[in-house]
Amino acid sequence: MRWSKSLIPTLKEVPQEAEAISHQLMLRAGLIRKLASGTYSYLPLGFKVIKKVERIIREEMDKSGAQEVLLPALQPVELWMESGRYSDLGEDMVSFKDRHGKEVVLGPTHEEVITDLIRKEVKSYRQLPIILYQLQTKFRDEIRPRFGVIRSKEFIMKDAYSFDRDIEGLNSSYEKMYKAYCRIFERCGLSYIIVEADPGIMGGNVSHEFMVLARNGEDEIVNCPSCGYAASLAKAECPEVAPRPKTSLKPLKEVSTPDSKTIGEVSKLLDVTPDAMVKTLIYEADERPYAILVRGDHEVNEAKVTRLLKCSRLTLANERTIEQATGAPMGFAGPVGLKGVQIIADYSIRDINDFVTGANKKDMHLVNVNIDRDFKVDLWGDIRYIRDTDPCPRCGKGLRIEHAIEIGHIFKLGTKYSKSLGARFLDEDGKEKDIIMGCYGIGVNRIVASIIEEHHDEDGIIWPISISPFEVLILPVNPTHAESTEFAEEVYTSLLDDGIDTLLDDRDERPGIKFKDADLIGIPFRIVIGEKNLKMGKVEIKNRKTKEVITIPKEDVVSTIKDLLKKQKEIYAKGKI
Amino acid sequence: MRWSKSLIPTLKEVPQEAEAISHQLMLRAGLIRKLASGTYSYLPLGFKVIKKVERIIREEMDKSGAQEVLLPALQPVELWMESGRYSDLGEDMVSFKDRHGKEVVLGPTHEEVITDLIRKEVKSYRQLPIILYQLQTKFRDEIRPRFGVIRSKEFIMKDAYSFDRDIEGLNSSYEKMYKAYCRIFERCGLSYIIVEADPGIMGGNVSHEFMVLARNGEDEIVNCPSCGYAASLAKAECPEVAPRPKTSLKPLKEVSTPDSKTIGEVSKLLDVTPDAMVKTLIYEADERPYAILVRGDHEVNEAKVTRLLKCSRLTLANERTIEQATGAPMGFAGPVGLKGVQIIADYSIRDINDFVTGANKKDMHLVNVNIDRDFKVDLWGDIRYIRDTDPCPRCGKGLRIEHAIEIGHIFKLGTKYSKSLGARFLDEDGKEKDIIMGCYGIGVNRIVASIIEEHHDEDGIIWPISISPFEVLILPVNPTHAESTEFAEEVYTSLLDDGIDTLLDDRDERPGIKFKDADLIGIPFRIVIGEKNLKMGKVEIKNRKTKEVITIPKEDVVSTIKDLLKKQKEIYAKGKI
Repeated sequence: MRWSKSLIPTLKEVPQEAEAISHQLMLRAGLIRKLASGTYSYLPLGFKVIKKVERIIREEMDKSGAQEVLLPALQPVELWMESGRYSDLGEDMVSFKDRHGKEVVLGPTHEEVITDLIRKEVKSYRQLPIILYQLQTKFRDEIRPRFGVIRSKEFIMKDAYSFDRDIEGLNSSYEKMYKAYCRIFERCGLSYIIVEADPGIMGGNVSHEFMVLARNGEDEIVNCPSCGYAASLAKAECPEVAPRPKTSLKPLKEVSTPDSKTIGEVSKLLDVTPDAMVKTLIYEADERPYAILVRGDHEVNEAKVTRLLKCSRLTLANERTIEQATGAPMGFAGPVGLKGVQIIADYSIRDINDFVTGANKKDMHLVNVNIDRDFKVDLWGDIRYIRDTDPCPRCGKGLRIEHAIEIGHIFKLGTKYSKSLGARFLDEDGKEKDIIMGCYGIGVNRIVASIIEEHHDEDGIIWPISISPFEVLILPVNPTHAESTEFAEEVYTSLLDDGIDTLLDDRDERPGIKFKDADLIGIPFRIVIGEKNLKMGKVEIKNRKTKEVITIPKEDVVSTIKDLLKKQKEIYAKGKI
Repeated sequence: MRWSKSLIPTLKEVPQEAEAISHQLMLRAGLIRKLASGTYSYLPLGFKVIKKVERIIREEMDKSGAQEVLLPALQPVELWMESGRYSDLGEDMVSFKDRHGKEVVLGPTHEEVITDLIRKEVKSYRQLPIILYQLQTKFRDEIRPRFGVIRSKEFIMKDAYSFDRDIEGLNSSYEKMYKAYCRIFERCGLSYIIVEADPGIMGGNVSHEFMVLARNGEDEIVNCPSCGYAASLAKAECPEVAPRPKTSLKPLKEVSTPDSKTIGEVSKLLDVTPDAMVKTLIYEADERPYAILVRGDHEVNEAKVTRLLKCSRLTLANERTIEQATGAPMGFAGPVGLKGVQIIADYSIRDINDFVTGANKKDMHLVNVNIDRDFKVDLWGDIRYIRDTDPCPRCGKGLRIEHAIEIGHIFKLGTKYSKSLGARFLDEDGKEKDIIMGCYGIGVNRIVASIIEEHHDEDGIIWPISISPFEVLILPVNPTHAESTEFAEEVYTSLLDDGIDTLLDDRDERPGIKFKDADLIGIPFRIVIGEKNLKMGKVEIKNRKTKEVITIPKEDVVSTIKDLLKKQKEIYAKGKI
């Protein structure tokens, strides 16, 4: 490709709208442009990267025995009613009424549609196992699109679905996908961490997330440098705590705390540390109110509460419900004297005595509150988020909590969808059974952003060869020097003839701009054709990553480039880098 | 691919829901399944064909210098307001309100979005010309989805857009796309007809449609076997007619025609032929009423009326407007005595005297009506559809009207979008000018259906090698005969190693089913491994199209297949077949 004929609108300035480095560099290198909040146009350079990532995904999925399909984005709402997920996605799900008044869902994910296909086409164990996948645009009405293509309203997802006769089959399909995912991310040049994750509204028991560490990553993962334990923040376990002996308890006392509602305000007013306080949050789980108790310095982990209560919908109660349940305005809830509300407490508050809670009266708190003496806990559990001051739940040593981008997520769904939608098969033993499912997602656009998060320096992007929009950039320094441009054209033609993806910077621009743009767009190898060097029969090849420059006889340029590319490609082709 | 591990659910019966042969065969060969009205899932075999078509499109677009991008499907409604097309697409356009109450359009086409991109990124003549294209799913809320993937609510379109400095540039871009389209369709094995077409709501003056003849095609094209004239029915011109001398005119007379409203009813009642009658239709063009007059045996061509009136919106008037304009209920409109309504007449009625029209009174018609004596025509024009009894507008000889599927449509848009959206550039002469645009569409799914319409027989599909889901099918006749299956496996491995796209029918099915399925799914070459032949060291190769069978020594099978494939591929690679 000739740069002068291409739409590669590089930007000198860092766009104000962009927080994440990948977002900044995708805009600056002319990979994307914003159309509206949460939607981006991929320009030629950006879409070339997308296509290279897609090719790697297809190769690895095909190799694993998965078959590519393409399901409609427009989905009949009836399938979502059947699966029971219609309200699960809430406002994130886009739906509209068609001209005949029928509600149509704009596919945020495809478990329902694929299960509908399989229930109609698969009847016998002889048709199983089967893994189907697609590369498709998904839609979610994100409330706060952020970080460019990392959290957007429209994105390309590789979603795969496995169908098996039994758990052993699911385990084997899951492992195939797990390994294929590792190879895909490795071939893309990503250093990833695999964490145990919470399946959330997807359902099932087991799931793993593939994460890439990034300063602006929206997800947080827990990581133990000692034993290698890794989990999503939502999933990471906090150990059970033994109750502290209840000796010499102080008498319960009501104190006035005017206008002090938050842990911070009360802590300051009463001069107690947050870890000697208990937070009481009123939640509604499947429309019943619950009081959820965690230590003042801890945060409620809703995923854990949902699992503990085995409920399908958990939301913070609104002010009216709080007043009904506690008799007080928001900010003064406590467990003492609560009626008709189940009390669920985190293990960690077993370890404290004489703590502070709300008094269920406006502007009042209780001090010296004690479990059993002053109130009963209906259900104990691990319902809080782990913190980096907690010990590792596996080895007890120190933990790290880091920001990351989720690039893949795989789930052992079990029979969640086959049961609700009736996807059954006749087994070898003549019995009809539910098909056992798994599902497996990769965010294609996020891969591109994650690669940039991992591979860049202060000058711009440093593409791994496997997904770089071009393999080689030819840069004739002086466009008015006929010999330079002639030789550049000659090399350009030779490389294209050899099937090497080459960009020729034939623009009539100053050398400074060309060099800066070259660093910015980050092509791995750059052939610099300078007047002086050329007179001595030489050209330079610069490695974008190492910044290493070699000066070689001009007649060796094609063979040298081919050697360099071969070596680079071998690194990524092999997987683990 | 092994058939036993694939999802290729063939059907013996012709599905009742399917009218078009391509729709029937796509269902029967397991290429697609219907999800809901107008939406289809592509199964592995069907999606392989889509990908092969897409690859040909990409190769030819890239070769022509076009660059691939990917624009969002979610479009801000403001762009459609700016271009003035918000209401043009009517109910076909899907839009919805997002969670913040903003209206979002689900892209039916992308002129607005790409013009928005270009107005922001292109400033100078030095950045022009540029051609951008994408392969993307489009959405239209079709009122009557039909013929499977031919008219569906969700479809893959290759849409390209060219941006030029001047008309010469547009002509050159248009020619590049025109030629690329020819090569694409030829490489797909399609016999196509290029017709002059009406640009419709896309705008511009010049457009061409690429059509494939098909019995169930929704479009009609006019074709002159003598001079080669070809046009869409909407576009085909009817010649101007000289007025017939007005001698010995009969006196105007009102006759009672109770309950007779249609041309057929009145013709029967009064015993006059429809070509001696004049139909008067009340239309609203940009909210003003017009009386449109055509001969009783002709049909109004709304595209032509729109062009003649230079209006942006033309609709048949509702009953109320008709009563207001004519003073009579629907069915009795006529030109005589009409007030405040412009009368637009087709040339062909100049040729008749003493004709019948409505009387603008309930249950009354006029006979012996004559132009100029009884009413004046405000505007004459060619506003009717051509018929196969009309002479060719070029050579005057006989015409044919045939059904066809539109697979491509290219438009010289001119400045329609650049003017309304303000996409301007600074030219070499220092003047700011509107960018000159063209746009170019291909219906990818329709290509697949059209190929089947053209390439099938009573037994099933006959794929051209260029887009066949597999190149070779290996069919061991008796799956219990160890030597057959062993040899089949051996050939399968060899062909895969040689990069030949091969399907192995390793199913435990009766030979009859295997042979029928093989014909149905239409792979060009079939290697039949039979017990008897194998004992004599031989195998059969059958050509699906010619039904020719050759029996060859089994050790020659790979080399023979490679020769056959090479010859077949050369036919399609060259283009014109």
